[in-house]
Amino acid sequence: MNTQRWKIVLEYDGTPFQGWQRQAHGPSVQQAIEEAIEKFAQERVTVNAAGRTDTGVHALGQVASFDLQKNTKAHVVRDALNAHLRPLPIVVHRCEAVASDFHARFSALARAYEYHILNQAAPLALARQRALHVARPLDVAAMQQAAKYLVGKHDFTSFRASECQAPSPVKTIDAVRLTKHARHGFDGAEIIFAVRARSFLHHMVRNIIGSLLWVGAGTWGLDDFKMALAARDRRASGPTAPPDGLYLTGIAYNASESEALFRPEITAQAP
Amino acid sequence: MNTQRWKIVLEYDGTPFQGWQRQAHGPSVQQAIEEAIEKFAQERVTVNAAGRTDTGVHALGQVASFDLQKNTKAHVVRDALNAHLRPLPIVVHRCEAVASDFHARFSALARAYEYHILNQAAPLALARQRALHVARPLDVAAMQQAAKYLVGKHDFTSFRASECQAPSPVKTIDAVRLTKHARHGFDGAEIIFAVRARSFLHHMVRNIIGSLLWVGAGTWGLDDFKMALAARDRRASGPTAPPDGLYLTGIAYNASESEALFRPEITAQAP
Repeated sequence: MNTQRWKIVLEYDGTPFQGWQRQAHGPSVQQAIEEAIEKFAQERVTVNAAGRTDTGVHALGQVASFDLQKNTKAHVVRDALNAHLRPLPIVVHRCEAVASDFHARFSALARAYEYHILNQAAPLALARQRALHVARPLDVAAMQQAAKYLVGKHDFTSFRASECQAPSPVKTIDAVRLTKHARHGFDGAEIIFAVRARSFLHHMVRNIIGSLLWVGAGTWGLDDFKMALAARDRRASGPTAPPDGLYLTGIAYNASESEALFRPEITAQAP
Repeated sequence: MNTQRWKIVLEYDGTPFQGWQRQAHGPSVQQAIEEAIEKFAQERVTVNAAGRTDTGVHALGQVASFDLQKNTKAHVVRDALNAHLRPLPIVVHRCEAVASDFHARFSALARAYEYHILNQAAPLALARQRALHVARPLDVAAMQQAAKYLVGKHDFTSFRASECQAPSPVKTIDAVRLTKHARHGFDGAEIIFAVRARSFLHHMVRNIIGSLLWVGAGTWGLDDFKMALAARDRRASGPTAPPDGLYLTGIAYNASESEALFRPEITAQAP
């Protein structure tokens, strides 16, 4: 029997899920999608994702792949999955037939994340569970300087969760952007940290944010941040920032997709 | 005993509330704020708002006013109300002492609303209850043309809810903007309708959107829209659009505030 491999691009609100990966207890995005596929195609499949997002982490451009024996079309797969995923906050934006050697996780050349911070006196209302709230004014210029140290090939042990199962703590960050966006009619600003790498360690972005927030608050100088990275010791760096502000924004499978991973609003501003 | 009048600027997620106004049954924004004031100041006051938003309608820049006998400072009022409003999705962005003749509703010179539409094949995930989803591609240029007819002084009976208690159906729309914003990495676009007037009839913006959506879908031509407005008959126009996409974005109390009501992202684009 012939099988067809499908690639899907997903958006989800991470709030009600215990992350991407199937869990013994509690809802996961993977389980929701595998169940939607079974309802549509009467086939039990395993769905592989490019990024195994944690509990509460959102996705704007997660990519997943799976095989179906059912003879069907891309737009039918997309619409059927969206129908069966209701009322969960997971949607399939795009679906395409891909070659059988495509693998959402192993074929990925680059992954991009954004972390959103609302730096304002008032707590969050409409942005609740969509951003981190920081009341104390942050020194964005200092955070931008610190973020530059992250670019390139480093041993990121200082920003690696103890449970991380990656074979090596050495990763290469291709690009970072840290931008400040005024919010019309509001005091304060939205600060967005965007980062692109082939792959990341467990909790790496949230641990980086924890230390950048110490720089922004003046708790740390630039040298402290630099030394924390060089220490190769998780105890040398700041706390893990909450998942609410983190978005998996996109996955690239070739060089041109990789260059287009950051949103123009982010790239237009100098880091 | 001396009293001080306070002006507050509010953001709220309208989803869990039966609108601004106190109801016999069900939570309202007004009740939540009056209760927070009582907890803070041990005073029972009536809070007046500039716009009485309906069930499910959001606010980014609602303005309200009330009197307190308590001798206190603006930042204390703001922080105390935010503390007592937790965990409700209502926050006070700004607070200031105002003259005793200031009235949030009657002193307002202009009110601005935005209506957000996500025009894409996939349903909503992160934007759920924050925008209206329209799957069928909309003709934004036609909607922009139709929206222009709304500007100026008109009898808006065709866009007036039957329960509306305004003394006259004649209102003056100062400005409209209908803009299309590409969403990086997504098919489809976000369409934002912004409108500014001294005051609005009940359901006026949502009823206008219902008819603009008929123009965008090709159900109506421009003349149909023009005729619906001229008919002065609610039965001549489209359905009431859902509250999820509607935001009360700001209130102006003088001419310069009025000119600054629209966000720069909206004003930068031609209508």
